[in-house]
Amino acid sequence: MSKIPVMELFGPTIQGEGMVIGRKTMFVRTAGCDYQCAWCDSAFTWNGLESDKVHQMEPAEVLDELVRLGEDKFNHVTITGGNPALIGKPMADFVRLCHQRGYEVGLETQGSRMQEWFYEIDQLTLSPKPPSSMMKTDFDTLDSIVNLLQERGVDFSLKIAVQDDADLNYAREVFGRYPDVREKFLQPVNNRANDSGDISAYLLNRLLWLFEVAIQDADFNDVRVLPQLHAMVWSNERER
Amino acid sequence: MSKIPVMELFGPTIQGEGMVIGRKTMFVRTAGCDYQCAWCDSAFTWNGLESDKVHQMEPAEVLDELVRLGEDKFNHVTITGGNPALIGKPMADFVRLCHQRGYEVGLETQGSRMQEWFYEIDQLTLSPKPPSSMMKTDFDTLDSIVNLLQERGVDFSLKIAVQDDADLNYAREVFGRYPDVREKFLQPVNNRANDSGDISAYLLNRLLWLFEVAIQDADFNDVRVLPQLHAMVWSNERER
Repeated sequence: MSKIPVMELFGPTIQGEGMVIGRKTMFVRTAGCDYQCAWCDSAFTWNGLESDKVHQMEPAEVLDELVRLGEDKFNHVTITGGNPALIGKPMADFVRLCHQRGYEVGLETQGSRMQEWFYEIDQLTLSPKPPSSMMKTDFDTLDSIVNLLQERGVDFSLKIAVQDDADLNYAREVFGRYPDVREKFLQPVNNRANDSGDISAYLLNRLLWLFEVAIQDADFNDVRVLPQLHAMVWSNERER
Repeated sequence: MSKIPVMELFGPTIQGEGMVIGRKTMFVRTAGCDYQCAWCDSAFTWNGLESDKVHQMEPAEVLDELVRLGEDKFNHVTITGGNPALIGKPMADFVRLCHQRGYEVGLETQGSRMQEWFYEIDQLTLSPKPPSSMMKTDFDTLDSIVNLLQERGVDFSLKIAVQDDADLNYAREVFGRYPDVREKFLQPVNNRANDSGDISAYLLNRLLWLFEVAIQDADFNDVRVLPQLHAMVWSNERER
């Protein structure tokens, strides 16, 4: 396969979460996932309902389309999915093309698969999924990815979306398992990803809950608690 | 003077803005300011209405009080004001004591005064004030502070609160003047700092405005647009 299965290309918009929160970026959302999280906010990437919208694109075509959309109004690209880590050489080529143009590249992936091109990513986030997702973490795989990244000196972050107490226990376990990771994030799950109305009050309420949890818990002293700002501002509007 | 004029000590809470947004921290808010910004959200530090609440405290007393309040539930301290840069040796001593206990220390200051202890700060934010504040930036002083920090390799950030188009022009000027600063932030002014009700909808609306401005403007490609999360979640509640 020499092409990238693209679900959406959009931007410029603002990265609403994680280690580059607030940064202007273009999004490349790939189709296909090895997970099916119960509360996935991008289930259309894997549930088949929009499979007719997937475009198989050459890496250079993806870049051309980003430049057409964003002109000179960006210098950062975020790769997300679905799980972009399912894609090998075409994504490696795309990342190289972005860097040749002077763009930084961020990646979000759950840590279930490794790719050589992870080493080239400027802001890499591993986001293992907690019990409420109904997915099961393969810790042998996650350990090996973390080890490989740390051996190469990649400055990645861990981000865990949490919904309930079992998820918080999972977050403690994961953060405790990898104490040398410099940046760790907790983020409230958006459990209203299918709601077409204004979900900002709901999201602020969930952020308040998570702030209060973190404040009381010494296990989360060096964790950063952040919302999904894009969902606060634009609710579930697509391509934001 | 061997003491620190303390207006408030509080926490643990969540740092709601800037380069350590989302991080759990304790706040040390000093009394006194060389500025009187029109929309200052902490005017009680300088307008005299709460001057009877100022405590002159030894650096070790401040630390003891933080530990009493936060126990083992923090490892980060934020120094803010007022303008903490008005304070010399007592603050240098306080920063050293924090580091001896293993706490990181963040500072927010407008860049109108320099102190030697700035070099010891883990996350330093210079926040020069735009025209809507009614203050006038002394660029000779700001230049010299930026130069000193850069010569010493301090990884500081610039953060500019903006309310209108004149403020955006000011932000372009400041960011353009210091192109080598790695992290630059834009933040909507909270112009309802004296409102006792829920200001979250107002703040989200201002964030949306600033997102849209940044998205359209190539001058802000590498700027991060962030809100004041504490004000979204807790409105203007004190000691949050």
